[in-house]
Amino acid sequence: MAQRRNRQVILIERPAGIPHSDNFTILETLIGEPAEGQVLVQNRYLSVDPAMRGWVSAESNYAEPVALGGVMRASAVGTVIQSESTRLTVGDVVVGRLGWQDYAIVDDFAVRRLSDAHTRSLPPSLALGILGTNGATAWLGLFGVGQPQRGDLVVVSTAAGAVGSAVGQLARLTGCRTVGITGSAHKVEVCESHYGFDVALNYHSDDFERELADVLAQGTDVYFDNTSGTISDAVMTHLAHRARVVVCGTAAISSWDPWPDGPRVARHLLTRTARMEGFLIQDHADEVDGVVQKLVPMVERGDLRYHEHVLDGLESAPGSIRGLYEGINLGKTIIRL
Amino acid sequence: MAQRRNRQVILIERPAGIPHSDNFTILETLIGEPAEGQVLVQNRYLSVDPAMRGWVSAESNYAEPVALGGVMRASAVGTVIQSESTRLTVGDVVVGRLGWQDYAIVDDFAVRRLSDAHTRSLPPSLALGILGTNGATAWLGLFGVGQPQRGDLVVVSTAAGAVGSAVGQLARLTGCRTVGITGSAHKVEVCESHYGFDVALNYHSDDFERELADVLAQGTDVYFDNTSGTISDAVMTHLAHRARVVVCGTAAISSWDPWPDGPRVARHLLTRTARMEGFLIQDHADEVDGVVQKLVPMVERGDLRYHEHVLDGLESAPGSIRGLYEGINLGKTIIRL
Repeated sequence: MAQRRNRQVILIERPAGIPHSDNFTILETLIGEPAEGQVLVQNRYLSVDPAMRGWVSAESNYAEPVALGGVMRASAVGTVIQSESTRLTVGDVVVGRLGWQDYAIVDDFAVRRLSDAHTRSLPPSLALGILGTNGATAWLGLFGVGQPQRGDLVVVSTAAGAVGSAVGQLARLTGCRTVGITGSAHKVEVCESHYGFDVALNYHSDDFERELADVLAQGTDVYFDNTSGTISDAVMTHLAHRARVVVCGTAAISSWDPWPDGPRVARHLLTRTARMEGFLIQDHADEVDGVVQKLVPMVERGDLRYHEHVLDGLESAPGSIRGLYEGINLGKTIIRL
Repeated sequence: MAQRRNRQVILIERPAGIPHSDNFTILETLIGEPAEGQVLVQNRYLSVDPAMRGWVSAESNYAEPVALGGVMRASAVGTVIQSESTRLTVGDVVVGRLGWQDYAIVDDFAVRRLSDAHTRSLPPSLALGILGTNGATAWLGLFGVGQPQRGDLVVVSTAAGAVGSAVGQLARLTGCRTVGITGSAHKVEVCESHYGFDVALNYHSDDFERELADVLAQGTDVYFDNTSGTISDAVMTHLAHRARVVVCGTAAISSWDPWPDGPRVARHLLTRTARMEGFLIQDHADEVDGVVQKLVPMVERGDLRYHEHVLDGLESAPGSIRGLYEGINLGKTIIRL
């Protein structure tokens, strides 16, 4: 078989702050053959994630930085087109860390085969979002760390985003009242009408802090935070007794070098005997499959809605991370090859 | 019976920051007779607590502020000298919120009778410290929130203090390595030789941050914090994966109005998937008695050591809170009447 040409998005420099297109280049290489226990996957959908900012940074973080000159780390959904594995056959649709490239050769244990329940009726690309790490992050972060009870008030930042929108819906389905915080009048409308938040607030509004104080007059029981920064600062002043704050992301902070100051949280946590806890899906890799099995029927029934922001072609990848942080997208950003 | 003269320490103005003696005056009044269900208690030992700063402040807090013109709120140990209660008899030694005064009339359910196991062999004043809320705070905060496991590294601030010294000893008895942070060379010596910390560090040392970084090279699993401020800021940069931070006090911050800034903690909590949680003994009032029963034999055997800093006479009360924050005392500060 003739070797396939494989276009790869390569990291060529580390960004100061949010990555942009000049930090990457597209290189065409030839891809070889899978060895025993491996498969050759043709990528169909590539993921774009806020966490990528951390992965390309040399700053202290929770994952090894992507090497300069290496293929950009990314989740992707693809089809097995050649198999030297006993576990996977040609035609299987899989998801895993396949990278920003046309093809990948990976060990069979490094990918997850999409369930028949998923591929029977739902788009395979959802394995990058609501039926993948985003959905599992929302579920495990909300239920595992946030521990909402029926009747609780749950506040969610980046409420129109891939994780935030799922958190809001799962909280509502649990019998909670939900308040979404988002960044435009249009997204407020989407949060309330599409995702069913009881209230959504635009943090760019001049009256944001007063509106938040009104809505949270009784304090919030759960705060699912993807932002840190001034949004989080505002919510932290309205914690209810024994509130739970899920720290799932810090999208509002463009750099941690130098380390930014903000209002101290210790006194809020003490006087409300509240809890603030980080959540990373990496700690829960073996739970994702089980959660996705629960989410599939919820998405099928329409109980759990999602939105995909689809970019076309590998050449859209280098500039795509910036788009996440500019807040121009709705829902999960993916790249269709 | 002639009415008794009762000297009372009265709050006459709210302090800016740490309370000082001019914020109080001593007033002599007459005390009446207990009604049905009440007892008249002669106070013998009064408690001095860091939390008193919050109680006299009008700032947002977890307890109703002490009224201007009212008796200063305080725990005290005393002897029942007249009883209209079926539960308590003359001669019983009790502890409760009896106030900074010579005598108090209280409902019988508002005080706790010291156990015979306690009074048989140990000073009754310990009911204000290691065998009272300090010991219960250490136990419940450490085990309930900090959840140390054998082999964990446990860091404690105000390590020579009433709560911190108990936390360090309980952690060591659990099989943890312990690091105490305190404020003088003498207290370092006390922490290591009297309380058995594996290492103690003086945060006034020029090399404190480097020494801390050396000791915490592998990260700390539990941080029991009584300080907030720069000590906490330094420890927070050395959290281990899934570390637990117990927020038990904020002694290093003299005022929360205006609210102070400090290095943001969200990124530490996220990248280490760590937890930071407030602890107030008020949330656990019904657990104190059970914990004290466990602590009595540990103190009797000498497994759990304590130190009392004893002031003499009611007139020492008004200036006593300031002493706590100046770090001049060792262990639990009490006033002997």
